Amino acid sequence: MEAFSDGVFAFAITLLALNLRDPSGSGVSLSEGLIKEWPAFFAFVTSFVSVLIMWMNHHNMFNYIRKIDRRLMLLNGLLLLFVVLTVFNTSLVANHILQPDASVAATLYAGTFFVLAIVWNGLWWYCTAGRRLLGRAVTDQQANTITRQYRVAPVSYGVALLIAPFSGLVLAVAGFFAITATLAQET
Amino acid sequence: MEAFSDGVFAFAITLLALNLRDPSGSGVSLSEGLIKEWPAFFAFVTSFVSVLIMWMNHHNMFNYIRKIDRRLMLLNGLLLLFVVLTVFNTSLVANHILQPDASVAATLYAGTFFVLAIVWNGLWWYCTAGRRLLGRAVTDQQANTITRQYRVAPVSYGVALLIAPFSGLVLAVAGFFAITATLAQET
Amino acid sequence: MEAFSDGVFAFAITLLALNLRDPSGSGVSLSEGLIKEWPAFFAFVTSFVSVLIMWMNHHNMFNYIRKIDRRLMLLNGLLLLFVVLTVFNTSLVANHILQPDASVAATLYAGTFFVLAIVWNGLWWYCTAGRRLLGRAVTDQQANTITRQYRVAPVSYGVALLIAPFSGLVLAVAGFFAITATLAQET
Amino acid sequence: MEAFSDGVFAFAITLLALNLRDPSGSGVSLSEGLIKEWPAFFAFVTSFVSVLIMWMNHHNMFNYIRKIDRRLMLLNGLLLLFVVLTVFNTSLVANHILQPDASVAATLYAGTFFVLAIVWNGLWWYCTAGRRLLGRAVTDQQANTITRQYRVAPVSYGVALLIAPFSGLVLAVAGFFAITATLAQET
Repeated sequence: MEAFSDGVFAFAITLLALNLRDPSGSGVSLSEGLIKEWPAFFAFVTSFVSVLIMWMNHHNMFNYIRKIDRRLMLLNGLLLLFVVLTVFNTSLVANHILQPDASVAATLYAGTFFVLAIVWNGLWWYCTAGRRLLGRAVTDQQANTITRQYRVAPVSYGVALLIAPFSGLVLAVAGFFAITATLAQET
Repeated sequence: MEAFSDGVFAFAITLLALNLRDPSGSGVSLSEGLIKEWPAFFAFVTSFVSVLIMWMNHHNMFNYIRKIDRRLMLLNGLLLLFVVLTVFNTSLVANHILQPDASVAATLYAGTFFVLAIVWNGLWWYCTAGRRLLGRAVTDQQANTITRQYRVAPVSYGVALLIAPFSGLVLAVAGFFAITATLAQET
Repeated sequence: MEAFSDGVFAFAITLLALNLRDPSGSGVSLSEGLIKEWPAFFAFVTSFVSVLIMWMNHHNMFNYIRKIDRRLMLLNGLLLLFVVLTVFNTSLVANHILQPDASVAATLYAGTFFVLAIVWNGLWWYCTAGRRLLGRAVTDQQANTITRQYRVAPVSYGVALLIAPFSGLVLAVAGFFAITATLAQET
Repeated sequence: MEAFSDGVFAFAITLLALNLRDPSGSGVSLSEGLIKEWPAFFAFVTSFVSVLIMWMNHHNMFNYIRKIDRRLMLLNGLLLLFVVLTVFNTSLVANHILQPDASVAATLYAGTFFVLAIVWNGLWWYCTAGRRLLGRAVTDQQANTITRQYRVAPVSYGVALLIAPFSGLVLAVAGFFAITATLAQET
């Protein structure tokens, strides 16, 4: 299952590059176009870092999970569905970040990550409830620590989601806050 | 062979995301466009779940198959061909589900899954006939149980295929019926 | 190295699906469009089968090769370059098979496979010359048998290349001849 | 981590094929179009070879690194970000190599490889400083030799970057110089 998940993560992260397009044409020079296209680059880097960190955390989580059942596979599939949606959401944010409807794209972007974070916590809860799928070497204390750490993500993205409808640009700040928080929690 | 198959499943499932496109432009606002684009999202989720479950069943099937010969590789390749076609069929359903020609797209969608289900059963029949490629630990009873389970898929998709020409939307119901059936059979 | 090659094969074979496009629009109905698009389906299936068989043979070849050096990695990379080019060539054949310039697309298609077959034989020659990278268990006779088998491909594709400029459609026949020959040699 | 990196390298190298497009249409014949499209082929081959060699060197580097920590994973992710950007940069070079703004595309292309080479050296420095993540079997002398070899890349690409603004075409020469240098250093 990890090989399949790794494949989806690696493939989604690479497909993000297809959201970058040659900006020249219709009277715009290449250098001008590239500068105007900064939101696409910004969205590319943000999503790349987000998916990368999700992959790292996913990898880490499966160090603790030692048994696999059909429901875990389905929950994991649901998780991957939202990871794959990142490719689409990133293109929306890139296209609209400077438009009046930036807030719509930002809401969808933050919303998807919010739901993803909830699925993530649900998956972890499913594995830990009654130590259902945990490895024997994992102590209850370790599991509880991770449970607490994972709660940061839905809160961060929940805040981003609340702010997004009012200002698309704020999302960027919230996004980086979420990333920093995710990084901090794991080190 | 499983690594290669896993790769194709993982790529096909991720490529489904490319069927989602920025719906804004030509006087349609982003939020309006996204709502109008619900068939694309619907088709994305349906195909994602279908490919995911196929991958899970594929993985499960290869727990019983312990020998590999050239014909199995070719049959498996034929199976993957129809998996990869899902990417194209999904885009057709997404584009046409609300059009008058929805039934054409639905027929092709259901038809591909129908043929896939037949290839699937053919592959399993090839492996089990005379216990050709089965592992030693697999009992005849286990093999027979799986044979019966696999017969659900061609029947489900056959029904979907019969309904599809009359109503494209019915396909959705049939699709979810097939998925539920597939899920039920495996638990 | 095999994991990397498997990834490229699996990815290239899946990307072939992107050459299939929704044919409706500009006054053409979906069913009409799909029928008119048969060359794209034909090219998809032909290339899918070709890449699949190449992957199977590649896998088989690396059962005999037990050592790896930098030059083998480069030769293998060159091989993969032509495998990846198949994605592009397939789209050309699909677009032009019914046009007056079918022969140009067919020549490029056959030419690429011809060069690929030569690189393939070169790679095998590099591994076998003085038994440079062969496993100890491989007998000289086995190696010679494979050498003879591999010579079929450049001859088949060479013939296809010679016919292609005169008639694009003949390529199809030649392609299937080559595939059948490849299949026969391996069983 | 290597499986994930291998996946990204394999996908990026295959996605390069999507930069090749059917050149016919608007009164240009296929053969004429293909000849005019030589920069796209040239860019495809150059980038394919560059990514291939990077993958080979990446693989080689991780023979010496035997421990993994979170910072290494992030540095490796940063490296992959620039690998993935190659897909975009290649399309820019292909589209603009014959245009007056070739130097802009060439600068971005060389600049990305330059930064990538610096990240590469940073990653290696991080692993070797105080022998932080090196395997026990690796001698200090071996590590120092590799450190010296890796310094060739930023210098090569730095020179390419300096020349690129003045002439886009010179980049090609510089690119091949860099590739040759990279090859020489490793054999």
